[in-house]
Amino acid sequence: MDQIRPSFIREILAVTARPGVISFAGGLPHPDTFPRDAIATAATRALSEAEGRRTLQYTETQGDGELRAWIAGRYRTRFGWDVDPDLVIVVNGSQQALDLVGKVLLDPGADVVIEEPTYLGALQGLAFHEPVWRSVAAATGGLDLGEAADALRGGPPLMYAIPTFQNPTGRSYDDATRDAVAGLLESTVLVEDDPYGELRYRGDDLRPIAPRRPELTVLMGSFSKTVAPGLRLGWMVVPPWLREPLLIAKQAADLHSNHLSQRVLVHLLAELDFDAHLTTIRARYRAGLEAMEAAIDAALPEVERSRPDGGMFLWATLPADLTARAVLEEAMARDVVFVPGDAFSPIGGSERSIRLSFCTVDPAAIEDGVARLAEAIEATRSGNSSSPASTTGR
Amino acid sequence: MDQIRPSFIREILAVTARPGVISFAGGLPHPDTFPRDAIATAATRALSEAEGRRTLQYTETQGDGELRAWIAGRYRTRFGWDVDPDLVIVVNGSQQALDLVGKVLLDPGADVVIEEPTYLGALQGLAFHEPVWRSVAAATGGLDLGEAADALRGGPPLMYAIPTFQNPTGRSYDDATRDAVAGLLESTVLVEDDPYGELRYRGDDLRPIAPRRPELTVLMGSFSKTVAPGLRLGWMVVPPWLREPLLIAKQAADLHSNHLSQRVLVHLLAELDFDAHLTTIRARYRAGLEAMEAAIDAALPEVERSRPDGGMFLWATLPADLTARAVLEEAMARDVVFVPGDAFSPIGGSERSIRLSFCTVDPAAIEDGVARLAEAIEATRSGNSSSPASTTGR
Repeated sequence: MDQIRPSFIREILAVTARPGVISFAGGLPHPDTFPRDAIATAATRALSEAEGRRTLQYTETQGDGELRAWIAGRYRTRFGWDVDPDLVIVVNGSQQALDLVGKVLLDPGADVVIEEPTYLGALQGLAFHEPVWRSVAAATGGLDLGEAADALRGGPPLMYAIPTFQNPTGRSYDDATRDAVAGLLESTVLVEDDPYGELRYRGDDLRPIAPRRPELTVLMGSFSKTVAPGLRLGWMVVPPWLREPLLIAKQAADLHSNHLSQRVLVHLLAELDFDAHLTTIRARYRAGLEAMEAAIDAALPEVERSRPDGGMFLWATLPADLTARAVLEEAMARDVVFVPGDAFSPIGGSERSIRLSFCTVDPAAIEDGVARLAEAIEATRSGNSSSPASTTGR
Repeated sequence: MDQIRPSFIREILAVTARPGVISFAGGLPHPDTFPRDAIATAATRALSEAEGRRTLQYTETQGDGELRAWIAGRYRTRFGWDVDPDLVIVVNGSQQALDLVGKVLLDPGADVVIEEPTYLGALQGLAFHEPVWRSVAAATGGLDLGEAADALRGGPPLMYAIPTFQNPTGRSYDDATRDAVAGLLESTVLVEDDPYGELRYRGDDLRPIAPRRPELTVLMGSFSKTVAPGLRLGWMVVPPWLREPLLIAKQAADLHSNHLSQRVLVHLLAELDFDAHLTTIRARYRAGLEAMEAAIDAALPEVERSRPDGGMFLWATLPADLTARAVLEEAMARDVVFVPGDAFSPIGGSERSIRLSFCTVDPAAIEDGVARLAEAIEATRSGNSSSPASTTGR
């Protein structure tokens, strides 16, 4: 997994830093979506004479009680699902949740069920245990249920999935698939990663898998995409039997998550109209998604693409005579970048696919970027690697 | 290790929450020492229009470059020791440093050299690997060097030590002992935990062990005692060969530490007169230490005590006919609490010792608390368990 990084991810990042480059490679939220003013006001309150001494002191391992109550209440509002705040554990982003769950549930070399393709960065939180991946392909409805049944047979300790607006494909499990996956869990703990669920641009909210099988699901959430990543806060909703072991692992890992950020969030969420704030973010990202869909359909008719109803990513598959790596070379020469599909496959695969983020690029630039992509595909096909960008020496 | 917690630590914490209780049990800094106003100003800057978008975005795994430069510069100022900022890794308090070092260096069941007694909370960061403890007793100069040589023979992968103002004993290694320990490391990595080094009340600063053997030492530092624990930030100075593996472990654990807190610290340390701030903290804690020493010497002449030159703790050893647990029962009945010594010994030991914190109690209350302690010792000895506190039903 680590072997992927040095070679081409660093090369992509280096290209991204050049002026004039259009990057569809990012996984970051757009900084215009951060409620900066409201966060600054919340910070002033959290550090006020009345509260500052408490904010700056050590706090409990599980996380601030008011913050956990807000998180639980949000599930009630969205899904009518009653979550006990005592089953919410605040963590340093979803990444830490995987680290802790892995420590509690995995022995070295354990089998772990994953989607193919999936977000390998998250799986690095489990990599320490050198797991054996059992991968399940996507299919109509979200997941190949036959493969899932095979992979879950024998009760491997863990399954990791992103059922809503997946990274990298953008696809979601439909309601029947969610029920089916919940039913397939015999003793396997499903880690349901849901960083994008609040970023829906079309259709209706789908109830997570967790309330369908609460005793075997750890539901992960995050403020990174709805508020700001720099606060580095996420959470887990855990089954009662996993609460104490996960708290012991959390305490051993860092005693507790950042108290300042937790108190900033408590004040922010008390003052901010969170739904109005989400409406603004959704409108921005939706415009990006629609611009990208229109540009691809116009300029790249041979490319198959996913039809995400939310999230940050669109997944496109090139015609059979091309590979994503070959096109990437030509794309970088034309100052446009994306992440090739094999970066999302620990066992190899998705060589013809590319992940495109539509969240950090303006709609006008999206059209331009897709046009450059079309040129890159053309050049790859014709074997013509000379290009305006490379002749100017950039 | 975990078995200690439920029983008596929780009982102590419950007693501490009662009004009128004098607690020598805490390990927290006094909240009056937090530079709250300056932190609030720094937060306003970090979240300003010019910087807020950056502060709130994802950042690099190793930590903010300006913060790492400050940390490196501080070692230059204090010890004339040139630390490369590229060998500084920002972490979520020292606790996370141990978690990461353990992941990189320990196989299951590995031998780990520790001081006896020591701070078991820190060792919980290693507990996941189920290490076998090789303990080394304290002695004149700080450590029994014969025992240390035995424990280090064969090159166990890790040694954990707090050479300056140790928790729980308050004692420090002298210069010769530091040199000797540095020389004894053959292939063992020493994790030198130094959360209290800036809190010196008497004598001269002692150069850490790390610059004496930089290729085999990970030096841990923290802002928890000098600024505020709620920012949850510490650091490691690491040998070049450990940098990359530790960064991979850090990225897998939580991508990066809290960016808001890092930027708050950068602004705070640019504006605050850090040395003047430390002078204020030192004056407060020194008054507490001196009050406690005077009270013990006056009221408890039979008790042997350590003579710390800094830090937060004093270690007292009761006469041979008493145990700390028995005295604790009587002490709790008289509304004074401490942590019994066996809480600091994974292999058993220190049953007659007690750890007393002098940092969160006012000097006048310290005298009162030590007087209650004298009563508790008296009552334990006479087997008289009736007391004013217990007869009022508290």
